[in-house]
Amino acid sequence: MSDTGLQLRSLITEDAVLKIGLKAAPIPEPAADEIVIKMEAAPLNPSDMALLTLHADLSTGRTTGSGADTVFTADIPAHLMNSVTARIGKSLPVGNEGSGTVVRAGSGDAAQALLGKIVAVVGGAMFCQYRLMKAVQALPMRDGISAKQGASCFVNPMTALAMTEVMASEGFSGLVHTAAASNLGQMLNRVCQKDGISLVNVVRREEQEALLRGMGAEYVVNSSSDNFRAELAAAISETEAYMCFDAIGGGGIVDDVLAAMEGAATKGQGSIGPYGSDVFKQIYVYGGLSQEPTTLQRSYGFNWGVAGWLTTPSMVKLGGAKVQAMRRRVASEIDSTFASSYQEEVSLSGALQVDHIARYARQSTGKKYLINPSLDL
Amino acid sequence: MSDTGLQLRSLITEDAVLKIGLKAAPIPEPAADEIVIKMEAAPLNPSDMALLTLHADLSTGRTTGSGADTVFTADIPAHLMNSVTARIGKSLPVGNEGSGTVVRAGSGDAAQALLGKIVAVVGGAMFCQYRLMKAVQALPMRDGISAKQGASCFVNPMTALAMTEVMASEGFSGLVHTAAASNLGQMLNRVCQKDGISLVNVVRREEQEALLRGMGAEYVVNSSSDNFRAELAAAISETEAYMCFDAIGGGGIVDDVLAAMEGAATKGQGSIGPYGSDVFKQIYVYGGLSQEPTTLQRSYGFNWGVAGWLTTPSMVKLGGAKVQAMRRRVASEIDSTFASSYQEEVSLSGALQVDHIARYARQSTGKKYLINPSLDL
Repeated sequence: MSDTGLQLRSLITEDAVLKIGLKAAPIPEPAADEIVIKMEAAPLNPSDMALLTLHADLSTGRTTGSGADTVFTADIPAHLMNSVTARIGKSLPVGNEGSGTVVRAGSGDAAQALLGKIVAVVGGAMFCQYRLMKAVQALPMRDGISAKQGASCFVNPMTALAMTEVMASEGFSGLVHTAAASNLGQMLNRVCQKDGISLVNVVRREEQEALLRGMGAEYVVNSSSDNFRAELAAAISETEAYMCFDAIGGGGIVDDVLAAMEGAATKGQGSIGPYGSDVFKQIYVYGGLSQEPTTLQRSYGFNWGVAGWLTTPSMVKLGGAKVQAMRRRVASEIDSTFASSYQEEVSLSGALQVDHIARYARQSTGKKYLINPSLDL
Repeated sequence: MSDTGLQLRSLITEDAVLKIGLKAAPIPEPAADEIVIKMEAAPLNPSDMALLTLHADLSTGRTTGSGADTVFTADIPAHLMNSVTARIGKSLPVGNEGSGTVVRAGSGDAAQALLGKIVAVVGGAMFCQYRLMKAVQALPMRDGISAKQGASCFVNPMTALAMTEVMASEGFSGLVHTAAASNLGQMLNRVCQKDGISLVNVVRREEQEALLRGMGAEYVVNSSSDNFRAELAAAISETEAYMCFDAIGGGGIVDDVLAAMEGAATKGQGSIGPYGSDVFKQIYVYGGLSQEPTTLQRSYGFNWGVAGWLTTPSMVKLGGAKVQAMRRRVASEIDSTFASSYQEEVSLSGALQVDHIARYARQSTGKKYLINPSLDL
């Protein structure tokens, strides 16, 4: 084993150029309660794009060099430089989650117990060959589970579970989910089906509708339908799904869902006065697939809420005991309810190739990429 | 005393005509725990307009008849008939709050104790000459307080107090208020000054700014200023006012406030990445002075909430003990912190005159109307 490992780093320069490259760093020495994981599988999640290609003009992208010297560069449009002020000139590590084999362990019992095991981890800087972690932060996979199977234990699984937990903790009994054919959406369907939770899936294309119905989804509504609001209201009326998680954010979708919820709450009576129904309607916006402004017509009285939502602060609110239980459940069902699949597996240097970037930056459903940093060894 | 009393009634007919008139009804006989109040003062609040002129085209308004036979009629524009479906053909009583003298009382102790006293009440149908209420619902005025002074004990006072209580219960330490020169806004200033709560007042005209500064308001920001967002962010930065009550609803004001809050939270660093600051920002929309859509640019990450807000459900959440304490405080400070003033006092039939309606329907600050139903006796 070499004494250094490569780490993927993302930098935006003052002259508005994004540079993503690899940096060699010494393999860290673990303290008593720490472990070093040889990373073998880390998904490219939508949330990773913020530090990768989110602000770049990919039509200007080019890859130079090879192996450890591979560099991807692209221009940042002038009007987006405002959005990245805080990170200009800072070389940042990337990668929210991943898994691999514990190759070094500190002297403590918890660390020693993990030596040689495959563990899943979350916390940033995962696109690297060797990652130092506290032993207690690692989620051990059971025998027979590969690093590839364990790669996505946190971002999608904990988000899907947090959605149903938040639903229950805020007193709702069903969910609406938009952009519902996503990897996360499919996982949420499996969770809801297993747990008997009513889920109204909103998609915008027929093939997405077919995909979810093929998975056994009972309520799938297509936003391209001429009768979208009425069809959505009918599904909400049957399921009493007055909480929605929305990945789109911009345009009229939040308004559509609130209006359909109010339609369901008033049983098609139409408006029941300026204050609306007494059924509280909550939309959590957790993504921004549309960067347009969110437009609210407010035709549904005053008994509604729209809020930004992120998994991590939400888990803080749910509390440590609940989160531990959620982690255990994910580990136990990582090859069923919480299984992920990947279209392509690339090395760290492979992830910097312009043709791969063009594909994974799109984050199309069913086209997920996995980085295997051990391929660069 | 006659055996009937007049009651103001509002009707929308199937052929899209609003008719507001007076109806004679028997003076009710109180049960043991009930009282009958001779109503002497009831304010025309913005919230009363929903059942009065909100949907009408006032340019078509005309008043016919006189005394008990006075009727005001106006057309409802075709495109607004959808908003009033549930009330078509139903003659509805109007009037959220008011006060008067207890002229009949049931045999119970609580009722008997109120006989001859001036009490304030809330609950609808207050634009009438005799109102039956449960004795426990009445808020007795202390000696020397007139019905006119006690007329507005609930809608504005309880709303202003509920705003500061909600602020505290949700962990905030300062407030932003829009359309802040309103009667409610002035009252909120008195509450916040008395209680040492930081309040950032947002107004849109210089004379409103002068009015609030004349009352001792420390933070007043004018939304017509070219530097509005920066000035608002500076005030929020000083006060840490990350909760806002907004009376406007439509247009960009909610977005302006959220962006200014984020500016304050990031101390002018600009954006700190796509997830924004970790300071939670909450806007409660409690009015609709602008009927335009609400537009959210979402340039402030995910740590924000926007929700409709009404006083009554909010008080249910605050709980009965808290609400009782709030009522006692209002009664005790009704001639100071919670004092209201009125530009004009009219009878029930006077309130149906087209020239008065044209004025009070505008709900201009400082032009509040009071109905005194005893003037029709």
